[in-house]
Amino acid sequence: MFQNHTALTNAQTLFLTPSDVVSIVHAHGLPKVLAALAAYVQDDFLRWAQFDKSPRVAAHSPSGVIELMPTSDGELYTFKYVNGHPGNGQFGLPTVMAFGVLADVATGLPLLVSELTLTTAMRTAATSAMAAKALARSDARSMAIIGNGAQSEFQAAAFAQIVGIREFRLFDIDVQATAKLARNLRAMGLDAVICGSTREATRGADIVTTITADKSCATIITPDMIEPGMHINAVGGDCPGKTELHADVLRAARVFVEFEPQTRIEGDIQQMPPEFDVTELWRVLSGASIGRSKGAAGQSEVTVFDSVGFAIEDFSALRFVREAALELGLGSRIDLVPPLADPKNLFALLGEVPATLHSRRSVCYG
Amino acid sequence: MFQNHTALTNAQTLFLTPSDVVSIVHAHGLPKVLAALAAYVQDDFLRWAQFDKSPRVAAHSPSGVIELMPTSDGELYTFKYVNGHPGNGQFGLPTVMAFGVLADVATGLPLLVSELTLTTAMRTAATSAMAAKALARSDARSMAIIGNGAQSEFQAAAFAQIVGIREFRLFDIDVQATAKLARNLRAMGLDAVICGSTREATRGADIVTTITADKSCATIITPDMIEPGMHINAVGGDCPGKTELHADVLRAARVFVEFEPQTRIEGDIQQMPPEFDVTELWRVLSGASIGRSKGAAGQSEVTVFDSVGFAIEDFSALRFVREAALELGLGSRIDLVPPLADPKNLFALLGEVPATLHSRRSVCYG
Repeated sequence: MFQNHTALTNAQTLFLTPSDVVSIVHAHGLPKVLAALAAYVQDDFLRWAQFDKSPRVAAHSPSGVIELMPTSDGELYTFKYVNGHPGNGQFGLPTVMAFGVLADVATGLPLLVSELTLTTAMRTAATSAMAAKALARSDARSMAIIGNGAQSEFQAAAFAQIVGIREFRLFDIDVQATAKLARNLRAMGLDAVICGSTREATRGADIVTTITADKSCATIITPDMIEPGMHINAVGGDCPGKTELHADVLRAARVFVEFEPQTRIEGDIQQMPPEFDVTELWRVLSGASIGRSKGAAGQSEVTVFDSVGFAIEDFSALRFVREAALELGLGSRIDLVPPLADPKNLFALLGEVPATLHSRRSVCYG
Repeated sequence: MFQNHTALTNAQTLFLTPSDVVSIVHAHGLPKVLAALAAYVQDDFLRWAQFDKSPRVAAHSPSGVIELMPTSDGELYTFKYVNGHPGNGQFGLPTVMAFGVLADVATGLPLLVSELTLTTAMRTAATSAMAAKALARSDARSMAIIGNGAQSEFQAAAFAQIVGIREFRLFDIDVQATAKLARNLRAMGLDAVICGSTREATRGADIVTTITADKSCATIITPDMIEPGMHINAVGGDCPGKTELHADVLRAARVFVEFEPQTRIEGDIQQMPPEFDVTELWRVLSGASIGRSKGAAGQSEVTVFDSVGFAIEDFSALRFVREAALELGLGSRIDLVPPLADPKNLFALLGEVPATLHSRRSVCYG
């Protein structure tokens, strides 16, 4: 990685704003960016053993949560800062805001600071679609989206591009959110069906994506809504005390997760006993475990991707935006770390010392 | 905190570079900045119970360590990113580089991103001097500094300003580092005595500061160097496998720490059994525990501040640089979080959608 930081004169760090990431999307188009993100995440999931993995570090408060999500593959280190504050709308702020850092493990130098609010929505959608590509029926063409907030358009775009979904059936308790999603999907040329209830939206759907924001143990999906062969992409149940699926939905399904120790705490399976069987997704991708069964049995199996968002996905996303930005010449350089002619002389940064205390000098007499 | 983020139009974040922090130092003078930092740290230590406290999250590699240090008082949340890479000199990079973030707990909005390389050196020195003010003999006037690297000038300046130290006795195995420190101290008008060994430097010193960088269990200070009434400010032993004091030095002294669970892992006391008695510094500051004993007994007591650096000190430092920068009109505004007219419409950031997939529209028929 030494080549990388000598390219940054004076140890400068690349900084990407939300506008820079929008420019990446405009340069390549959203479908290609989502496909690239899915490929980066899949590449990193396939070298799972190389990563330092630990559950995120969360600071909970009455209004929400602030989390740090670090990981490293031994060459690069990344972390994401992300909050979740359901009441942020009243302040004109997003519920979820995020930024991240990518650093060189050999020196600790931060190489990149990037927005991750927009990027998280894209990497979550890309990961969901990558998982569905491995777990859903290959003939899946319709998807219900329950919860039509900030991330829903990205989910739809990723499933259209990566899984081949052709019809989106929308429901949210906030009808204006659904109207916004339908408008945005139609602007992308996607089929949007506005539905009056979760039951109506899920009826006949091949895939059900739940991406609601309430910080409570809700039961969005009940067993009577489940149809043979369905794949459930459960995205919104992602912190302690926040679930979306009825326990019987989980019991009736084969359940796949990102990183089991974290999902046991944060995912929908937090309501299940510790021995409840789950499979880590990387095992399916690598062929170490079976996803949906082959043949007729597989056609009626119900699969669940109990997604909570894992640090390796942000690692992949930070790699992607850095490479895309360097290729396109996007971003700016910021002074996060001081350039030092003599690394042991940090004090020299202060230049002329402005205030003196004494003036006597002495030599060693010890 | 709502006043604070409405002041940042479009959810912009204040960004402070090393140059901005240098400007704060130039505006007030280093002694006043160190005294202010010590006061901020002391204020926060005195409301110890209000803080979320957890040991730092470390990622170790063969070349060094990268750490995240989060904390919160329920109103503000901060974290520091900091590395420790002893071999960084060969790349022209500091051994320790750091930056930090201060955020609003109520919304999760990042209010400040700041350099903390220079600031960490100042907050560490301010904390050391604040501890020595509470623990060393009040007539202490000479201090040995063992390890004359990047942080040593700041230690000297803080002890001169806050503790009243008048003579600094310097030793480092790197004679050029000592020459640099002596030159910098003399430029500040401080007495610098260059010594040929640790033994020579510590002889007759009232306070001994150890701030060496080797990542190993070294024995810098041995029992024969200890004199009655000495205070030892042990700063360099700050991660697993890195110590500076002989175990018998600790046994012969009263030992004070920042946050006991972290220091048991990272401090010089990592070599002691779990039942080895230590006192958290905040207890001394608040009067809940006794520091150095009063009267004649206290004059001969040996005290050790086994300092590893704790997240609350960075919280205090981030509070200080933010308030100082806002007062002086320093820093710039960066777009870390996207401004959204409708927080549920993150997708609107992308503006016109560049690539379409389909065009059929439909209405609900469920």
